[in-house]
Amino acid sequence: MAKISRGKVMPPIALPICLLGANVEGRPNYCTIAWFTMIDDEPPTIGLVTGKDRRTRDGIAENGTFSVNLPSADMAVPVDYVGITSGREEDKSGVFRSFYGKLGTAPMAEECPLTMECELKKVVEMEGTDLIIGEIVEVYADEQAYHGSEPDAIVLDPLMYLSSAAAYHRLGERVADAFKVGKSYRRVT
Amino acid sequence: MAKISRGKVMPPIALPICLLGANVEGRPNYCTIAWFTMIDDEPPTIGLVTGKDRRTRDGIAENGTFSVNLPSADMAVPVDYVGITSGREEDKSGVFRSFYGKLGTAPMAEECPLTMECELKKVVEMEGTDLIIGEIVEVYADEQAYHGSEPDAIVLDPLMYLSSAAAYHRLGERVADAFKVGKSYRRVT
Repeated sequence: MAKISRGKVMPPIALPICLLGANVEGRPNYCTIAWFTMIDDEPPTIGLVTGKDRRTRDGIAENGTFSVNLPSADMAVPVDYVGITSGREEDKSGVFRSFYGKLGTAPMAEECPLTMECELKKVVEMEGTDLIIGEIVEVYADEQAYHGSEPDAIVLDPLMYLSSAAAYHRLGERVADAFKVGKSYRRVT
Repeated sequence: MAKISRGKVMPPIALPICLLGANVEGRPNYCTIAWFTMIDDEPPTIGLVTGKDRRTRDGIAENGTFSVNLPSADMAVPVDYVGITSGREEDKSGVFRSFYGKLGTAPMAEECPLTMECELKKVVEMEGTDLIIGEIVEVYADEQAYHGSEPDAIVLDPLMYLSSAAAYHRLGERVADAFKVGKSYRRVT
């Protein structure tokens, strides 16, 4: 199909949403982030892109630890709230029930079906943003979120964000098995 | 809800899938990537995490350009195929119909409802992977993929990947407006 040039604009991408958590002066702080990616699998390493002046950053520098929390689609209201409200202006410590894992200083949001605590490894400074790289030390999940080693997409019900549309979505139906369905590809000759 | 420790494992995250495209010795090559993130919005900048030895990397080094293509959910078979097949072993140039934009050397897959061409800005070398950072020069979309400036999630129908479950999904229903629904948050006191 012929394509239309849209210019030098931000593309609409369906991104997972996470809450980046850190203790700031002893109190839990969370901010909403859609710009993050896995960096490596051995050891499990994650990278999050943040503004240089976010308050959660102070807590990461303070403790060398942080958490990444994956909210479910029914959490859109509080998740959006901590995204549009700065911890510099409001105390967000009570928005979620925080719990701590083995690191002791990375607050995690109990309401999220899946959370992980991370040790800060490196900050890659870029022009307008920084990439916070952390090693995942432990993953925590609701009991129903896995069946054996298999995560349950319905229970996790991850909150997604379609950029450029400023819209939250949920994850939809499973369509195929990864690393498998491609074996049925037949070249058109 | 009480959480269960899952250990030091890869977390299940619902990630968008893209095809990273580059010309290698004059022929289009695509590989499938789920580890990428926006890096900045002004100028629009994207970062992709890749293995150090992928063939598409040769093309990025060769031309200093690449493309990021967002496939729709009905493209799972060819997308998975180029993900499990190395360009070192098979010529993948015919899997998608390629077109070129203003950069001239970044092949884009016509089957994808949204594509973008990028200029390589920087490679951040990390331990096991590299982060390829590119500035988005132009976004291309099917005519029906936007209504004015608003992208249409149903037309884009982005192919998602739930890691740890090795499953492809589509994006689900819209649940709320971002940067807006959080204004209705009321603190429980």
